[in-house]
Amino acid sequence: MTRRTVILTEGYSDPDSAKTAIGVLRYKPEEVVAVFDRQRAGQTCQAVLGVGGELPIVGSLDDASGANTLLLGTAPAGGKVPAAWRPIILEAIARRLNIVSGMHEFLADDPELAEAARRHGVELIDVRKNDEHDVANHQDIREECLRVHTMGTTTSCGKMVASIEVARGLNRAGVDAKFVPTGQTGILIEGDGCPIDRVIADFVPGAAENLVRKAQHHDVIVVEGQGSLVHPLYSCVTLGLLHGIRPDGLIFCHPMGREVVPQANNFRIPPVEKIIEFSLTAANLLWPCKMIGIALNGHGFPDDQVEAEREKLRAQFGLPVCDVIRHGPEELVQGVVALKRELGK
Amino acid sequence: MTRRTVILTEGYSDPDSAKTAIGVLRYKPEEVVAVFDRQRAGQTCQAVLGVGGELPIVGSLDDASGANTLLLGTAPAGGKVPAAWRPIILEAIARRLNIVSGMHEFLADDPELAEAARRHGVELIDVRKNDEHDVANHQDIREECLRVHTMGTTTSCGKMVASIEVARGLNRAGVDAKFVPTGQTGILIEGDGCPIDRVIADFVPGAAENLVRKAQHHDVIVVEGQGSLVHPLYSCVTLGLLHGIRPDGLIFCHPMGREVVPQANNFRIPPVEKIIEFSLTAANLLWPCKMIGIALNGHGFPDDQVEAEREKLRAQFGLPVCDVIRHGPEELVQGVVALKRELGK
Repeated sequence: MTRRTVILTEGYSDPDSAKTAIGVLRYKPEEVVAVFDRQRAGQTCQAVLGVGGELPIVGSLDDASGANTLLLGTAPAGGKVPAAWRPIILEAIARRLNIVSGMHEFLADDPELAEAARRHGVELIDVRKNDEHDVANHQDIREECLRVHTMGTTTSCGKMVASIEVARGLNRAGVDAKFVPTGQTGILIEGDGCPIDRVIADFVPGAAENLVRKAQHHDVIVVEGQGSLVHPLYSCVTLGLLHGIRPDGLIFCHPMGREVVPQANNFRIPPVEKIIEFSLTAANLLWPCKMIGIALNGHGFPDDQVEAEREKLRAQFGLPVCDVIRHGPEELVQGVVALKRELGK
Repeated sequence: MTRRTVILTEGYSDPDSAKTAIGVLRYKPEEVVAVFDRQRAGQTCQAVLGVGGELPIVGSLDDASGANTLLLGTAPAGGKVPAAWRPIILEAIARRLNIVSGMHEFLADDPELAEAARRHGVELIDVRKNDEHDVANHQDIREECLRVHTMGTTTSCGKMVASIEVARGLNRAGVDAKFVPTGQTGILIEGDGCPIDRVIADFVPGAAENLVRKAQHHDVIVVEGQGSLVHPLYSCVTLGLLHGIRPDGLIFCHPMGREVVPQANNFRIPPVEKIIEFSLTAANLLWPCKMIGIALNGHGFPDDQVEAEREKLRAQFGLPVCDVIRHGPEELVQGVVALKRELGK
């Protein structure tokens, strides 16, 4: 059954909150019928979310004709379903829509939702559900496969987008490359992957290794990063992923204008050069790993400021720098190809 | 009900494998009746495990008279119950002993064991079970409480022992200090704490913060570390714990003679100075943190070699160095007191 999705973002219809909605609108618009937000009904997705073109924002499920799925379009820290969404979800179930969620709080564990789903014969699909129970062991890794990994300054800074764009850019350049998702939005887009932040801590590197093993028949894999090594809430996930994947090369994702972590009492993010140095050290203490380039995220900034920042970073690090949305990913793609050649992979 | 425990170590009765048994024998011998291992029956715990004095090793539950609890005395990587233990566990249940386990694989989830426990009216106690679902937020932390944390070169290097010994040493010196356990053995000894490696990755720093909040009415807390920032299997847990606790000071635990990680394809452990530098950087990128001293673990080495290593580390780092078992923890205790004074806490 083809998924025809209405995406629920009500109360979270801004580019920072509606991450899942924006990812799906950007990379799977053909599966989207509409976005649901009563306060923004009548506007277009493009106007409100910056992606999705003329796809409508609707204020009633009546206006999402043909939809067979309701996707919860955000995944806040802690991953709890907003209370205000419950009646909307129940109405969607009553209309026989399947519900897809990337929340930590599983829909299937909610007695009221589970009972409603049973009664109406619909599926509750919890994308973050997993049963990873393997410890890493460094065995059965095909070293001929080049492992590329995105890391970054902080959370929500474009790691998934950079990973997808670089993998697709490699494909266009004739390289057998695959994007490997590690978060709920990437999983919805690619149809495989592992929701790594939901894995039991002891099994995170093992789950990352499993991702590598599943994809390593490709010549290159680009594994989506999570969080940041200096993000007080998510550094744990970031390091487990890094040490599980053991990438040959990193692409560092850096958003312009981000100075603090609001969820951690406005913790001040360290300077980018410190984070890059720390990330390379974290990798190289275990095995050789190079920085391929920087994916600058200039979202919301005018061209001239983005160009100035790009030049500054190029001069500072002597690496390829591009905003994959604004400039395309080709500089980074060439960096990956060069590393592949250098390592004879 | 006072716990009178027989500890099962059969097939794992060596100092490297029987970690949980050894910890409980060292710090709660008054609760132990015997150790169960048919191959070692008739010997003493001291002879086989290096702790526990004259407590006997028995080859039949008949010989563990008065026991009301069977404790699984090891927790291997991956945390699966050894298949050979199943008949012993079932026999203990039939004799109406409660079963205590620190395994990842929960006894209560095993249909055969759960049914047997129900039939015989005994409890299956899974120490690693938890329901941590809070994200860290850096709120409600009492900064007057000095936070000390043990880190180390690798796994099983004496972090729990150093934490307990330093906390008890502080108590002897008249300081209101508490040991805060983060692993199954420490939890069994102290009666509180959190099995941090079993927490969902996204909630590790939040669980660590919760530990701090629960204990911060003390003047000093010594929070047990886990794994190592360069241990390919556990670095994820280590960093999440570090960033959740945000310690004022670190005690670095270093075992003599350990060169590789056998579970990770004999990964070569980096030099100690690199790990110490990396650990301090990982902390100081987020908040100010000092190295208090080194807990040298000379287990299995003769005195002269331990003294030589102690002098070498003292000269190299200019820090207090002691083997808390061999020398007592006083040098480290004085280091904690000095840091407390320096920070005015």
